[in-house]
Amino acid sequence: MTGRIQFWFEFASTYSYLSAMRIEDAAARHGVAVDWQPFLLGPIFAAQGWDNSPFNIYPAKGRYMWRDMERLCAARDLPFVRPDPFPQNGLMAARLALVAKQQGRIGPFVRAVYAAQFGRGLPISDAGVLAECWCAAGLQATLIQDASAPETKAALRAQSDKAQKLDLFGAPSFIAGDELFWGDDRLDEALMHAASI
Amino acid sequence: MTGRIQFWFEFASTYSYLSAMRIEDAAARHGVAVDWQPFLLGPIFAAQGWDNSPFNIYPAKGRYMWRDMERLCAARDLPFVRPDPFPQNGLMAARLALVAKQQGRIGPFVRAVYAAQFGRGLPISDAGVLAECWCAAGLQATLIQDASAPETKAALRAQSDKAQKLDLFGAPSFIAGDELFWGDDRLDEALMHAASI
Repeated sequence: MTGRIQFWFEFASTYSYLSAMRIEDAAARHGVAVDWQPFLLGPIFAAQGWDNSPFNIYPAKGRYMWRDMERLCAARDLPFVRPDPFPQNGLMAARLALVAKQQGRIGPFVRAVYAAQFGRGLPISDAGVLAECWCAAGLQATLIQDASAPETKAALRAQSDKAQKLDLFGAPSFIAGDELFWGDDRLDEALMHAASI
Repeated sequence: MTGRIQFWFEFASTYSYLSAMRIEDAAARHGVAVDWQPFLLGPIFAAQGWDNSPFNIYPAKGRYMWRDMERLCAARDLPFVRPDPFPQNGLMAARLALVAKQQGRIGPFVRAVYAAQFGRGLPISDAGVLAECWCAAGLQATLIQDASAPETKAALRAQSDKAQKLDLFGAPSFIAGDELFWGDDRLDEALMHAASI
């Protein structure tokens, strides 16, 4: 591995699903290591004056986004089911992702959660759904309780603070060297940059 | 030509510059005809509650957009100068574009205006700048006054009404058949769809 890319994702984000499902394979082709960085968009959107997903606040943009996702998922042979309600609450999933990262299993866990949410339309705030994803990722069930530990909660808050310091405004976001790339549409450019530095 | 694509653009839009400079060549490769559709984003943004460019309203997104444009223009060998103030007032340019369309010269005129604005940083509300673009596009100087005719003003208002009925929320937007594609990042997909129907 020569380069490194930070992948900042929010579980409720539709376009983060697209990136999560392909970033490991795409990064491997470029010889780049992936650093998975879960965070919450809620505090960032709140700072922009939004109390909901921009796709709900701006209906025309929302209608377009769902059709765009349908087309993109069809082109990539990814299953796509629109979760209801949208956006889902990804707080517990994000805390679990930090625990999975310590165990070296964050990629499989994150993919399992996205597949449950956007591939099967399951509620990712549901403890049973999350437990199924956890075990499917090869993680020990007894570790689930670590997600509720004070240090895990603090670690997720620190992620969101770091995201704001990095000037992130949406997800997925990629950081390679000093360059920020936003959106699944820029993943290839971000990887090329990561491989070049 | 087998297919047809509507290209909805706003002169003040940075990403519309990227599409305007490549759409004719790209469409020709797909055997698709381009239908140039100037419109104003102002009324559409106002309906969303915005009184300015989203890139000014959301500073982090704005900072990112300028860097993204720098990178994309460098990769495409397009000159890029950030116009000041941003956004520019594209009202007269849009009216002139409708006159140029009647003359069968809208493509060359639109490219000249974008090149002046984003390639050289010139003010596109300036009558002298617009006259230079007009003549560079091979249009007769005496036709410039047609842009201020009541029927031209009404035609541009009709464009913005049509854009709202089409559920457009930003620019550039592309329509192929019944499908809407938003952003320079979707131009290739839009052309492939136009060529397939």
